[in-house]
Amino acid sequence: MIILMKKNATQEHVDRVVAVLKEHGLGANVSPGTQTTVVGILGDKAKLGGLDIRLMDGVEDCVPIMHSYKLASRDMCPEGRKVEVGGEVFGGKKLMVIGGPCAVENEESIMKSALGVKAAGATMLRGGAYKPRTSPYSFQGMEVEGLKLLRKAGDATGLKVVSEIVAQDQLEDAAKYVDMIQIGARNMQNFRLLKEVGKSGIPVILKRGIANTIEEWLDAAEYIMSEGNYNVVLCERGIRTFETATRNTLDVGAVPVVKERSSLPIIIDPSHAAGKAQYVPALAFAGIAAGADGLIVEVHYNAKAAISDAAQQLSLEAFADLLQKVKQMAPVFGRDV
Amino acid sequence: MIILMKKNATQEHVDRVVAVLKEHGLGANVSPGTQTTVVGILGDKAKLGGLDIRLMDGVEDCVPIMHSYKLASRDMCPEGRKVEVGGEVFGGKKLMVIGGPCAVENEESIMKSALGVKAAGATMLRGGAYKPRTSPYSFQGMEVEGLKLLRKAGDATGLKVVSEIVAQDQLEDAAKYVDMIQIGARNMQNFRLLKEVGKSGIPVILKRGIANTIEEWLDAAEYIMSEGNYNVVLCERGIRTFETATRNTLDVGAVPVVKERSSLPIIIDPSHAAGKAQYVPALAFAGIAAGADGLIVEVHYNAKAAISDAAQQLSLEAFADLLQKVKQMAPVFGRDV
Amino acid sequence: MIILMKKNATQEHVDRVVAVLKEHGLGANVSPGTQTTVVGILGDKAKLGGLDIRLMDGVEDCVPIMHSYKLASRDMCPEGRKVEVGGEVFGGKKLMVIGGPCAVENEESIMKSALGVKAAGATMLRGGAYKPRTSPYSFQGMEVEGLKLLRKAGDATGLKVVSEIVAQDQLEDAAKYVDMIQIGARNMQNFRLLKEVGKSGIPVILKRGIANTIEEWLDAAEYIMSEGNYNVVLCERGIRTFETATRNTLDVGAVPVVKERSSLPIIIDPSHAAGKAQYVPALAFAGIAAGADGLIVEVHYNAKAAISDAAQQLSLEAFADLLQKVKQMAPVFGRDV
Amino acid sequence: MIILMKKNATQEHVDRVVAVLKEHGLGANVSPGTQTTVVGILGDKAKLGGLDIRLMDGVEDCVPIMHSYKLASRDMCPEGRKVEVGGEVFGGKKLMVIGGPCAVENEESIMKSALGVKAAGATMLRGGAYKPRTSPYSFQGMEVEGLKLLRKAGDATGLKVVSEIVAQDQLEDAAKYVDMIQIGARNMQNFRLLKEVGKSGIPVILKRGIANTIEEWLDAAEYIMSEGNYNVVLCERGIRTFETATRNTLDVGAVPVVKERSSLPIIIDPSHAAGKAQYVPALAFAGIAAGADGLIVEVHYNAKAAISDAAQQLSLEAFADLLQKVKQMAPVFGRDV
Repeated sequence: MIILMKKNATQEHVDRVVAVLKEHGLGANVSPGTQTTVVGILGDKAKLGGLDIRLMDGVEDCVPIMHSYKLASRDMCPEGRKVEVGGEVFGGKKLMVIGGPCAVENEESIMKSALGVKAAGATMLRGGAYKPRTSPYSFQGMEVEGLKLLRKAGDATGLKVVSEIVAQDQLEDAAKYVDMIQIGARNMQNFRLLKEVGKSGIPVILKRGIANTIEEWLDAAEYIMSEGNYNVVLCERGIRTFETATRNTLDVGAVPVVKERSSLPIIIDPSHAAGKAQYVPALAFAGIAAGADGLIVEVHYNAKAAISDAAQQLSLEAFADLLQKVKQMAPVFGRDV
Repeated sequence: MIILMKKNATQEHVDRVVAVLKEHGLGANVSPGTQTTVVGILGDKAKLGGLDIRLMDGVEDCVPIMHSYKLASRDMCPEGRKVEVGGEVFGGKKLMVIGGPCAVENEESIMKSALGVKAAGATMLRGGAYKPRTSPYSFQGMEVEGLKLLRKAGDATGLKVVSEIVAQDQLEDAAKYVDMIQIGARNMQNFRLLKEVGKSGIPVILKRGIANTIEEWLDAAEYIMSEGNYNVVLCERGIRTFETATRNTLDVGAVPVVKERSSLPIIIDPSHAAGKAQYVPALAFAGIAAGADGLIVEVHYNAKAAISDAAQQLSLEAFADLLQKVKQMAPVFGRDV
Repeated sequence: MIILMKKNATQEHVDRVVAVLKEHGLGANVSPGTQTTVVGILGDKAKLGGLDIRLMDGVEDCVPIMHSYKLASRDMCPEGRKVEVGGEVFGGKKLMVIGGPCAVENEESIMKSALGVKAAGATMLRGGAYKPRTSPYSFQGMEVEGLKLLRKAGDATGLKVVSEIVAQDQLEDAAKYVDMIQIGARNMQNFRLLKEVGKSGIPVILKRGIANTIEEWLDAAEYIMSEGNYNVVLCERGIRTFETATRNTLDVGAVPVVKERSSLPIIIDPSHAAGKAQYVPALAFAGIAAGADGLIVEVHYNAKAAISDAAQQLSLEAFADLLQKVKQMAPVFGRDV
Repeated sequence: MIILMKKNATQEHVDRVVAVLKEHGLGANVSPGTQTTVVGILGDKAKLGGLDIRLMDGVEDCVPIMHSYKLASRDMCPEGRKVEVGGEVFGGKKLMVIGGPCAVENEESIMKSALGVKAAGATMLRGGAYKPRTSPYSFQGMEVEGLKLLRKAGDATGLKVVSEIVAQDQLEDAAKYVDMIQIGARNMQNFRLLKEVGKSGIPVILKRGIANTIEEWLDAAEYIMSEGNYNVVLCERGIRTFETATRNTLDVGAVPVVKERSSLPIIIDPSHAAGKAQYVPALAFAGIAAGADGLIVEVHYNAKAAISDAAQQLSLEAFADLLQKVKQMAPVFGRDV
């Protein structure tokens, strides 16, 4: 951390800052500039405990020069982490494509969607059982019965399955029925849930919050990893901006930034970013072209009749077309599907 | 809800939409415009179930014309709701001013802060026991021991106390030790937690999420109210924008909008919006001037040494000055303190 | 336009609205709903002049159902418009790739950059002569001397040239020396400049403002087109959001939205969105994958020594690599380079 | 400026940076930290010219520690600047209240509005003659005829007048007919216009761009001041965020930030921020409470029939009520009206 002194800071101010650092077992490197003096802290700033140097007289600001996450950083694992889910690997050469309906609605529906998703060539099956809905009067999901049906559809098709949980007491059931859990955008900073998921060791997709920076997202991943669970796959799904033509704004630039700063795999959710089925393929291709390790796409065997998020779910035909083009793109970027 | 047909929609498209509405027990009122045809739905659109009319051929878009919240709406209680906490009332003539440290750190600290807050004329005492922190390596709060100390400080000073919970299993302890709980910005859409708080009946401050619209905020209040708990006080604490000079951007316009659309009391948290102590008074005064029912302000008896959020906590002197000026302002707006 | 009446609107309110519409030569189609009455306007709402129906008693809101742009809309030219610049065509099968330095700095520099850009396979050359800079103390560009050098470099390499203007009195010089002009993000709503460019008939790249919606952008294009100049190419260059890891957030979803709503060609500027050279290729590929008609990329023969925007300019080698990969991607999307 | 070296930077990298600084006549202060080395630059970094240190091998980032504006800074004029317009002073004890219609529509209208505004106790009269409109098909203003009518209304009532210009060739006419000009949000970074206004010496209200940071705004003021015109009054009018309940989000926190960083007076435009007349008073009071030096409010003698922005214009009665309350508030904040 670097301390910037105010323009009108006195020598006494600077001396006091240096003295305080020493009291806490830290060294100081004073750089008297022509306009402002800068004090570099030598040693681990954690030694300061709760002391906020910014509040000392004569101090203008403190500039952090290190990330607060460690396990999630690229430095800790320069070659990149791989996350294995039942034989399939996120972060390898192969692009992972997860497809399935927004919500598990009934057995016939999830089974038909699973068969179609499998036939199109997807790697995994998704389906929501616990749905976080903006209004309490909207359909809230089939809960544990939904997980069981999802498992059944996965077993019938040989697809591994992933589903979202929204509270820690759902973790036990999820562990029984799914291969991977998802933490949704609204829970990215539900730190208690993150810790419990960390303790469980279950592979997890961690979606970015709609108003969270990439740094906060990696800090959230750190919550899971600091409990011993390194099986974290990041998922960019669009951020909230002033533009309303799409449901959210896909931050495709997050892909190269995450690849530079973090060792974790990253996939793209084009469905929630687009909000409308007709924009989904363009965003999916953009994500892959930017270097993502895979996709998670909402697909429904009878898209127009889906109970939730109908507008953004692809039909099986549209999903098959999308995958076909992803297969053609992959070699250009040194990947396969 | 209103259905807008596409410019090139045919009579068959319109007829099909009307037929589908009828199949679901709804009436239709067709308005053939010069450029586009509009179909108004007669009846309760909930009868449509999961059917998304937007996906029908010839349909351009659907425009909702009603809010999704009911209990939280102004219509349901035009005179405004009042929330009582141990004899003090949010939503009445008296402005409620809550003061206290970001976190309960130890007995001496919370006691000194409580005494100072009381002396300045505050109505209630705040203090965090469960701290949601961006990084897992930051101080996470004293948990239940913090609640006990807060209760002790409240009893010693006669101040009612409020503290944040971040998970449902903290609710039982909170019910024992505090008079009011707070749901923080990060948990505004933690719907499970909202429902549990709804069942508990405990008065609650519901902070707005940093990227949530006013409509989503009122939907979150509806989650609590739909479980039977009408003791909800809204708290505007700044939203995330591109501006970084302040920690967040206080959306002071939310005050008149909430007053128009909802019957719930609304208070302002100038501390988290400002992020720096020197901007806190200006934001506090702005909130009161805009019509808020009160303030929740971070105050620490020894602000510069606070363990968390030190930069934004007011000293006892600064807090007393702030309250002094609020007292002078109040009569202009028909309020007292 | 549709008029939504308030829930408590009386029959008199509705009758008065209908009467006012009739006074202005418009028909009305009244849909009495269970919760609110809706009045559809029959006829051209321009007949209302400045009358704002929203202000009438009993009216809740008015919902526009048409875009305000006409010439820029997809409806007016469903097959898509093509913009020709000296034999090269934006909006056809061929992807247009424009490369060149942020600013023209001197003859040697622009000539070396032009030769490298040409060798890499670019279609056009860019170079700034009038630089809009945030601070008055930054380098402001070589102005007309810069345009002359750009022309010289274009003639030497056979590349058509494009350069930004920031004021209407620069239009005459620009017309002499460049083949296409650029309106930058800061001037997207400089309506006088847009009109003058419209009158000039010169092909123009219209960049999206950093805080402007797609609808406002198309309205800005309409300003140019309504003066008779249909040679408008849109350019998405990133919008301003809360994320600071990249200079701006590339709104890659704008590509399919523009393709749906407008007939105009659209290209991507990955350089200003990224702000750092290492992120530029990922954003460029994402733009092409999303369906853009081309790219405009900052390239400098000696990138590290560039006078302005050094951090985001590609070296000639990096630009050649980028173009190589774009060539490989193009056939997957039915394009060539 | 401070240079942060990469974690893996070698001694050679550091030595090279120091050598380059010396070549440019600058000193260097090297602070070898435990995790990263920091190099402070001694001397005026302008000596670096266009050299971007960030591009040197081993360099992670450069952190600016000074604002780029000088004349607009608080440091240059700690007591605050005053801007006089025909005897009235912005930045003194007296709150300045400017009222008037969005647009000058005809003589009767502006005259009636002026009389009402005067009667209510306003200090100055506003009225738009050159209107920047999103769509080319909207009313564009009466231009110079509007300026003449505004002058006439000002003379008749004894009110000084202010009006917006949107292009430099309007400056000559404006100089003839108005006492103060306004640069609107869309032109905040129209640097050519800013410079011309700077040369003119005419007092100017500089509105903040809807997506511009406070730093960029002060840089824009610097453009005007660097040409010798110090008569700049800043105006906060709301920024663009994801919230749509109000037209823009009034950044009331900008008031204390500007007061800290800059010596320029700042006023609030509650009308454009609110977008609806019923929210205007709350935002006006909030602005004054936050410490603003005045208000600019849209008022129309027959608000419901106004040609443009009808929804947000106050009636004369509502404006008089607003002013009445501002008068009551003023003494609390050491001001008068």
